[in-house]
Amino acid sequence: SMVNAGAMSGSGNLMDFLDEPFPDVGTYEDFHTIDWLREKSRDTDRHRKITSKSKESIWEFIKSLLDAWSGWVVMLLIGLLAGTLAGVIDLAVDWMTDLKEGVCLSAFWYSHEQCCWTSNETTFEDRDKCPLWKKWSELLVNQSEGASAYILNYLMYILWALLFAFLAVSLVRVFAPYACGSGIPEIKTILSGFIIRGYLGKWTLLIKTVTLVLVVSSGLSLGKEGPLVHVACCCGNFFSSLFSKYSKNEGKRREVLSAAAAAGVSVAFGAPIGGVLFSLEEVSYYFPLKTLWRSFFAALVAAFTLRSINPFGNSRLVLFYVEYHTPWYMAELFPFILLGVFGGLWGTLFIRCNIAWCRRRKTTKLGKYPVLEVIVVTAVTAIIAYPNPYTRQSTSELISELFNDCGALESSQLCDYVNDPNMTRPVDDIPDRPAGVGVYTAMWQLALALVFKIVITIFTFGMKIPSGLFIPSMAVGAMAGRMVGIGVEQLAYHHHDWIIFRNWCRPGADCVTPGLYAMVGAAACLGGVTRMTVSLVVIMFELTGGLEYIVPLMAAAVTSKWVADAFGKEGIYEAHIHLNGYPFLDVKDEFTHRTLATDVMRPRRGEPPLSVLTQDSMTVEDVETLIKETDYNGFPVVVSRDSERLIGFAQRRELILAIKNARQRQEGIVSNSIMYFTEEPPELPANSPHPLKLRRILNLSPFTVTDHTPMETVVDIFRKLGLRQCLVTRSGRLLGIITKKDVLRHMAQMANQDPESIMFN
Amino acid sequence: SMVNAGAMSGSGNLMDFLDEPFPDVGTYEDFHTIDWLREKSRDTDRHRKITSKSKESIWEFIKSLLDAWSGWVVMLLIGLLAGTLAGVIDLAVDWMTDLKEGVCLSAFWYSHEQCCWTSNETTFEDRDKCPLWKKWSELLVNQSEGASAYILNYLMYILWALLFAFLAVSLVRVFAPYACGSGIPEIKTILSGFIIRGYLGKWTLLIKTVTLVLVVSSGLSLGKEGPLVHVACCCGNFFSSLFSKYSKNEGKRREVLSAAAAAGVSVAFGAPIGGVLFSLEEVSYYFPLKTLWRSFFAALVAAFTLRSINPFGNSRLVLFYVEYHTPWYMAELFPFILLGVFGGLWGTLFIRCNIAWCRRRKTTKLGKYPVLEVIVVTAVTAIIAYPNPYTRQSTSELISELFNDCGALESSQLCDYVNDPNMTRPVDDIPDRPAGVGVYTAMWQLALALVFKIVITIFTFGMKIPSGLFIPSMAVGAMAGRMVGIGVEQLAYHHHDWIIFRNWCRPGADCVTPGLYAMVGAAACLGGVTRMTVSLVVIMFELTGGLEYIVPLMAAAVTSKWVADAFGKEGIYEAHIHLNGYPFLDVKDEFTHRTLATDVMRPRRGEPPLSVLTQDSMTVEDVETLIKETDYNGFPVVVSRDSERLIGFAQRRELILAIKNARQRQEGIVSNSIMYFTEEPPELPANSPHPLKLRRILNLSPFTVTDHTPMETVVDIFRKLGLRQCLVTRSGRLLGIITKKDVLRHMAQMANQDPESIMFN
Repeated sequence: SMVNAGAMSGSGNLMDFLDEPFPDVGTYEDFHTIDWLREKSRDTDRHRKITSKSKESIWEFIKSLLDAWSGWVVMLLIGLLAGTLAGVIDLAVDWMTDLKEGVCLSAFWYSHEQCCWTSNETTFEDRDKCPLWKKWSELLVNQSEGASAYILNYLMYILWALLFAFLAVSLVRVFAPYACGSGIPEIKTILSGFIIRGYLGKWTLLIKTVTLVLVVSSGLSLGKEGPLVHVACCCGNFFSSLFSKYSKNEGKRREVLSAAAAAGVSVAFGAPIGGVLFSLEEVSYYFPLKTLWRSFFAALVAAFTLRSINPFGNSRLVLFYVEYHTPWYMAELFPFILLGVFGGLWGTLFIRCNIAWCRRRKTTKLGKYPVLEVIVVTAVTAIIAYPNPYTRQSTSELISELFNDCGALESSQLCDYVNDPNMTRPVDDIPDRPAGVGVYTAMWQLALALVFKIVITIFTFGMKIPSGLFIPSMAVGAMAGRMVGIGVEQLAYHHHDWIIFRNWCRPGADCVTPGLYAMVGAAACLGGVTRMTVSLVVIMFELTGGLEYIVPLMAAAVTSKWVADAFGKEGIYEAHIHLNGYPFLDVKDEFTHRTLATDVMRPRRGEPPLSVLTQDSMTVEDVETLIKETDYNGFPVVVSRDSERLIGFAQRRELILAIKNARQRQEGIVSNSIMYFTEEPPELPANSPHPLKLRRILNLSPFTVTDHTPMETVVDIFRKLGLRQCLVTRSGRLLGIITKKDVLRHMAQMANQDPESIMFN
Repeated sequence: SMVNAGAMSGSGNLMDFLDEPFPDVGTYEDFHTIDWLREKSRDTDRHRKITSKSKESIWEFIKSLLDAWSGWVVMLLIGLLAGTLAGVIDLAVDWMTDLKEGVCLSAFWYSHEQCCWTSNETTFEDRDKCPLWKKWSELLVNQSEGASAYILNYLMYILWALLFAFLAVSLVRVFAPYACGSGIPEIKTILSGFIIRGYLGKWTLLIKTVTLVLVVSSGLSLGKEGPLVHVACCCGNFFSSLFSKYSKNEGKRREVLSAAAAAGVSVAFGAPIGGVLFSLEEVSYYFPLKTLWRSFFAALVAAFTLRSINPFGNSRLVLFYVEYHTPWYMAELFPFILLGVFGGLWGTLFIRCNIAWCRRRKTTKLGKYPVLEVIVVTAVTAIIAYPNPYTRQSTSELISELFNDCGALESSQLCDYVNDPNMTRPVDDIPDRPAGVGVYTAMWQLALALVFKIVITIFTFGMKIPSGLFIPSMAVGAMAGRMVGIGVEQLAYHHHDWIIFRNWCRPGADCVTPGLYAMVGAAACLGGVTRMTVSLVVIMFELTGGLEYIVPLMAAAVTSKWVADAFGKEGIYEAHIHLNGYPFLDVKDEFTHRTLATDVMRPRRGEPPLSVLTQDSMTVEDVETLIKETDYNGFPVVVSRDSERLIGFAQRRELILAIKNARQRQEGIVSNSIMYFTEEPPELPANSPHPLKLRRILNLSPFTVTDHTPMETVVDIFRKLGLRQCLVTRSGRLLGIITKKDVLRHMAQMANQDPESIMFN
């Protein structure tokens, strides 16, 4: 109630501050847009109240201190929970991914690695083989080799994958439909000031966490990074509901959510700084400096919680730690830029095809069978993935292997080079060598895996299961990059007399690191799809710990963004926002058309005049009729219909609540009571019923622009001030109104899109 | 002229677009505030024009491409020039600092290190001693030891320091008074939309670069980091003046300057990401995402240019590269937080004392003798600094030595521990040892150096020479940190059975790294003075290459900020902005008072009514009188004085230009010609002189708020939209005007400061 009283004074009315406010004022309906200025002003009122009270007694002073610190407490809690959930998800995925291949006899809840680590019979060379770990064929028919064992393992693999996927899609359908997708487009929309009740609810949190484990384990071509942002935001929403400072103010709540998004990326990649920048660059709308600092805190707590759980068993924060032994050379910029071009093309291809397929899902019968769709895609993925070792292993393992430099102890097929027996060298500094049979086999398998990954990811992203695309994008780039890298390496080895190699690659030198190419390719592809820039580069170097490779990463990221932007400005998240018609006013879109406010405002020419309220001449019944006949979210209040002089703006929701409240509680309020918004009641004839004072719900400082204001300024004002609506005047006369929806519609129209695709207010 | 035409259409008038514009419209006077919305709208017009023209011919298309790429070209040029200048400054400082001690016989332009490196007689152990390098005493009286040699060297040291300082202050006084100080407060003000002509000019660039070398070499307690930001911004200003896209639009120019500031920090510390974040968090006002990306590019180019010049000779980007061999332990957080408290207290002390001293300089006779002041401070610094080895060496060398871990080969006095002769261990992993005599001596000298640094820095920062305080602040923190670190180390060695050490510090283990304490202390002190947060932590870890010590750094930075904020919210830059009365509307200040627009607007109660123009009834003479009698920057235009209905706003500067232009070129314009702002000329009696149409200079979309708007909303609008003024209305009637200066005055008043300290419009 204190907060509501604050809300009232925020709308400018200081006089009847003592009137008791009625419930629900200052909240919003589902699928409506919040008014940022009003939220901010409400929070300042609340803060002012607490500060002035804090001087009254020690208890109030302590309360005010608690209030000031509650922001940091929320951040701490978010960090702890997000980190814990991420750790649990990592452990569970690890176990369930291995479950598709076999089971541990000593304890069924051990993953392959844990099983063999705890076994005493494991030698260092054969870490992957231990008697306690049984493949399904060994366990069921006691065969470990041969065609029938292979087929049995193959079948078990497919069966488990189908089981996981079926469970996941069913859970999502039955308990939390909002848990599907990556969640980032919706979170962007919510952070820009839109209400979607339940999207960040407790059920969504629970189901998304569980199903995320299931879908990642099922081997589908998707990642857990985007959904982890959603999970972290659900945590943020949960904890902010515990503190009235955040639960009762949609603006303040969004500050917490921005920080939670940073914590999500932080645990997804072990990249706290990258997480903060991702939240700043990609997700958030209103990001004051205070939030920057708090986000950083939440991101760090989350990362350290995750490190304490230590799911990767290497006690490092970073996911794909690499150490390269050679620097890069200027001449290598050419292949890096080529990888950037590839990344940009992949981004364009992916976005176009995925959006086309998602549109088809929305508009045709396809959308009616989400469970079947998931089952089919899972089956296809499992059937094609199993035979190829690079698609059978989990995608993060694949990326990790591709990023790695071939050390002396490396047993991977990708490191099967022909060693020169005469050469003895320190372990770290291995010169370029000719590729062996294994490398050539790996190249073929990688090429097939690349094509498969590209195609299947297009169909996977957007199904009714949690799915992120950071990891699949990075995998596509890493595969392409590693292949290019091996190509350059072999070229340099066999042709070191070519002019391009002569200066930096003498025989016997270690000049080309194919793993670095994989890293650059991954950055390029991720950049092409998401159009992230600074945050991408920061995430990549936090991910891999390589501060020295910032120029190759940046060259590829810039190229990829330019190439992709040449084919269309939208990143995948913006594309999905448009596809779904969310009312999202992007800060990045530049509005450069020459229209004026008068071209956008309603009523248009020929339409009936604007529905307005007069300040002291309409009866309760008049207003009720107006409310019934229109569906506007609010009405301007004018001195009189003739003068058209604006005095304020009344929200529909608050009008309804106020009239309902007055009819129930105030005596003498009947249908033909006069409603007045002025300070003093109007002079009425004797016998007229008791008038109803509504000044309290009147916003006395509505935002106005003149009809000659260029639309680009109007768009700027809507963006920067987070308005819900704006009134249009000419020489002091009220002419019309522009809502956020009108602005979005106009922008869509100007961009030759269907303006009716914007669905909400 | 194309740009000016664009400016006109931006103010809403599309009809008389073909009228030829007159020169100088759309520019600003010195010490005036720009109108961001208008600048933006002018740029959009320009862009629109180029886009529509680009379809006409191939040449125009190429021109439009060049225009689109000019932003990147400017960034490239800024990066190259800033990197080169930083490299040249580093090399020159290196040489001139050594010149105070001696000279190289083989080539006088060699620094001590270069001299001995090029000499053949240098052995690895005695890198610092070579026959070619002569101390002044050796050269002049052929003595290298003894009291008289010491005194001679001491004198030469003081003489050189005085010479350098005298040269610097004279150059600044004579050629470029704007070259003094760190420049960051002024750059913040300029970036927020204020015009200070010449502040970023070519002379300032040249003189600041030269004098920066002189003052750093003179051994004064100041750093080159802040001034390098100013130098980079001068480069930015220079290159933006080459492209009409930037030179003719103050808003666009500021985007370039933001990026240049990032490049400046990038070369100052070798920290490109930290530079971008510094620009974002600390310096910039309007920072769209496009600028983020470009800043990053400029920062990277600058850093790599600097690396190619390689002034430190270690081919690393980072200034103080460290490698520690042990992790940190939870229990160490306690001393880290103590260091944070120290940093906060130092920040408070420094800001209070420095501001008090600067105020005294401004208000008393002291300010009239800047040269004398510099000479005295330099003399005192040189006299006290020489005897103590920690103040004699350059401050960056000192910081580098304090950050370093004591390896086996370290010959520094700080590493003089008592070795256990029985122990043979690998070189890297040296256990904690008892301190030797050298360490105890070093502790005393460090304590004296710390006190001296604290006192002298207060008097140095703010003199009429270029001076930054990043390095002195870091030095103070590093000295305190190293001392605390050695203390904890010795405590842990001698009392490893204490409960706080027992768990992590067994005898013979290497548990405490004093260098890490120095790093944490440096971060804390820098944070206390500047109140940087995320950018500070990022700069620190880019500076030192230590990604693993993010938690200690952050703990210290947060503590330091909290402690310092408890004593006063202002950082040193904001304090200097206030001291100088720059019209800077800080995004960080929260305005929480309950005043309304009506309390701030002019005219106040009892003042004469607002000076307005009417749309079609005033003569040229009326307007000229009005302009002469008032000094307002612009006048609202109303339908008539009775109705007070607002139709637009006319800038004073443009009114004067338009009248002057009309009187010169348009026939029939005399003193009693009617001026009209409407589309059609008013109906005039016969014989009346030719009327003057001024619709073109009328801004048809002036910003308005109602008188009931809370001031906190008004402040928010001014901040976010970068307004110059805003009109106040009630029920459609014009009531008054609020300018940026009024807002700043009101904020100062509410904060119990002197409102008249704000000096400019």
